[in-house]
Amino acid sequence: MANFITLFADKPLNLVLGGSLSSITVAYQTYGSLNEDKSNAILLCHALTGDSEPYLDIESDNKGWWQNFIGSGLAFDTDKYFFICSNVLGGCKGTTGPASINPDTNKQYGSLFPIITIQDIVKVQKALLDQLAIPHLKAVVGGSFGGMQATQWGIYYPDFMDNIVNLCSTLSLSAEAIGFNHIMRQAIIHDPNFNGGDYYHKAPPEKGLKIARMLGMLTYRTDIQLTKAFGRETKRSSEFYGDHFQVESYLSYQGEKFLSRFDANSYLRLLRALDLYDPALGFENRQDALSRIKARYTLVGVNSDQLFKVNDIRQSKQELEMAGIPVEFYEIYSVFGHDAFLIDYEFFAPMIKQGISK
Amino acid sequence: MANFITLFADKPLNLVLGGSLSSITVAYQTYGSLNEDKSNAILLCHALTGDSEPYLDIESDNKGWWQNFIGSGLAFDTDKYFFICSNVLGGCKGTTGPASINPDTNKQYGSLFPIITIQDIVKVQKALLDQLAIPHLKAVVGGSFGGMQATQWGIYYPDFMDNIVNLCSTLSLSAEAIGFNHIMRQAIIHDPNFNGGDYYHKAPPEKGLKIARMLGMLTYRTDIQLTKAFGRETKRSSEFYGDHFQVESYLSYQGEKFLSRFDANSYLRLLRALDLYDPALGFENRQDALSRIKARYTLVGVNSDQLFKVNDIRQSKQELEMAGIPVEFYEIYSVFGHDAFLIDYEFFAPMIKQGISK
Repeated sequence: MANFITLFADKPLNLVLGGSLSSITVAYQTYGSLNEDKSNAILLCHALTGDSEPYLDIESDNKGWWQNFIGSGLAFDTDKYFFICSNVLGGCKGTTGPASINPDTNKQYGSLFPIITIQDIVKVQKALLDQLAIPHLKAVVGGSFGGMQATQWGIYYPDFMDNIVNLCSTLSLSAEAIGFNHIMRQAIIHDPNFNGGDYYHKAPPEKGLKIARMLGMLTYRTDIQLTKAFGRETKRSSEFYGDHFQVESYLSYQGEKFLSRFDANSYLRLLRALDLYDPALGFENRQDALSRIKARYTLVGVNSDQLFKVNDIRQSKQELEMAGIPVEFYEIYSVFGHDAFLIDYEFFAPMIKQGISK
Repeated sequence: MANFITLFADKPLNLVLGGSLSSITVAYQTYGSLNEDKSNAILLCHALTGDSEPYLDIESDNKGWWQNFIGSGLAFDTDKYFFICSNVLGGCKGTTGPASINPDTNKQYGSLFPIITIQDIVKVQKALLDQLAIPHLKAVVGGSFGGMQATQWGIYYPDFMDNIVNLCSTLSLSAEAIGFNHIMRQAIIHDPNFNGGDYYHKAPPEKGLKIARMLGMLTYRTDIQLTKAFGRETKRSSEFYGDHFQVESYLSYQGEKFLSRFDANSYLRLLRALDLYDPALGFENRQDALSRIKARYTLVGVNSDQLFKVNDIRQSKQELEMAGIPVEFYEIYSVFGHDAFLIDYEFFAPMIKQGISK
């Protein structure tokens, strides 16, 4: 069970692209113990549809999104470190987002929820750490959307952490990935239930959200993995429009499962934050922003990643280096593509251990 | 202007997966002249959304889908060969498809149009050639969906052609590509205008079809090409849900343009024919089917192709060779990915010339 805290109760958070939010609730979870000199705290930043609980107690039927990575002696060693993870601003896992009550109207925000950015998300995380009286981080670690947060931490608060670990992510999203996000958005907003985002207390835009999730899933995995898992296997009862092949059934199941755990408005807000992320925002230019980073920077790319392509990750490495930031760079192969950082423990554990240990 | 012919007027075509169609209209076009001994005819098979006219007269404002490939001295040399191209069964470019009048009801087929396969498409093409009194083909050439047709020609009518040229296509679709087709189908059938496929004389499912086309476009191109063309350029008037980035505007434009030239029901039928294609259909097994091929077989893969991945094309090469079919295999790089066979004349012209010349 996550912890909840209210921040910005006295003074609203002014958002980077305009508007403000006050009385922001943040859901967070911690693992391990903070040592006496408060030098062993590590912030874990979740990916697009993650939450504040990368590890769930064994009693739970469910597993956290980094369940196998966190524990005694593991990549995220709870004997050594104190881990904090919070749900992002704009999310739907306990932190204030479009489904939260707007104090101005006493109704759910819906369409009135402002545009948020990675920069805003990071500011809320910093306010959380301030509230928890954590003065310094050993490391900020994130994959995908979380990797962008880790980079932004280094830019905004360069003295606050020793290490940044960015897994399967770039300094900004590619045109192709923006294209996939565009298609997902169009599927949601053209669902007749969407109603401009004001669908709470009515039927939500489930068909559109399901299509979006299915498309997301394809970009997170690889053709090789899908061929291994499903190939051209068919189901016994075939349908012309529906699930004739097993891979269709798999995608439909994944899409359906997502409906119970995610809000379409949050998905739209976070997708756009992903598109919009640019380290240069608020600085002269990208190099000016990146050159602020003081932490040791570890960057890992997966060469089968279909969303954050390894060419783009290599380019991010170059941009960091041109800004004077030395990068510990790893490029690995995994059959799982983008999702490798959530699945391939054996590959990632040594790099994570190394990346957070300075 | 295409030519039209009616086939199966006396005896219906029994479809491979059940059902039948009679009085099938076929739209076709020819280029060049058939020589005296009728030995220079080449069949061109179009891809998913193509038509019977790969080349359009210069007076036309539009260009055919192989406009730059066809002409005097070109890859498809109209001085040497006689080219025939027809719109596929189930299409919406003049050949009988779901939008055609069902003679049993005197209404458009809509939801009543049967499931068609590549095998059925090829049978109709063969009936067209018989009607045109063409006894033999110098070559059958196709890319993508058209490449599957070319393979099936070699299986069904092994003595009918000297050469098969299969560009950017495999012997069957991968799980991932079926997944993309599944998502496109779901977008169309969940458009509230779809009405099970009976939307003629009403508003068509344009939003769903537009989403499907946008997704198709992303799989036909490459991240590198989109980065070169659009990168992270934004439009002056930005929209939160809509076209903030140029790549979004490009996709929206492509999706919109598609609506005036394609019918959703045809798109659904042809997508499924793509999924379902299996050379083994009607034979003991795949090897049994493939071993029937007598023509020289040329296979070209593009290593940036995101839809027909080069690994799968290599596997098709192996399967053909295991069935005793020697394959002239080329693997090229193009920034255009799957669409390279429609765009990259310089790369493809020598392989096409070679492939049709035996």
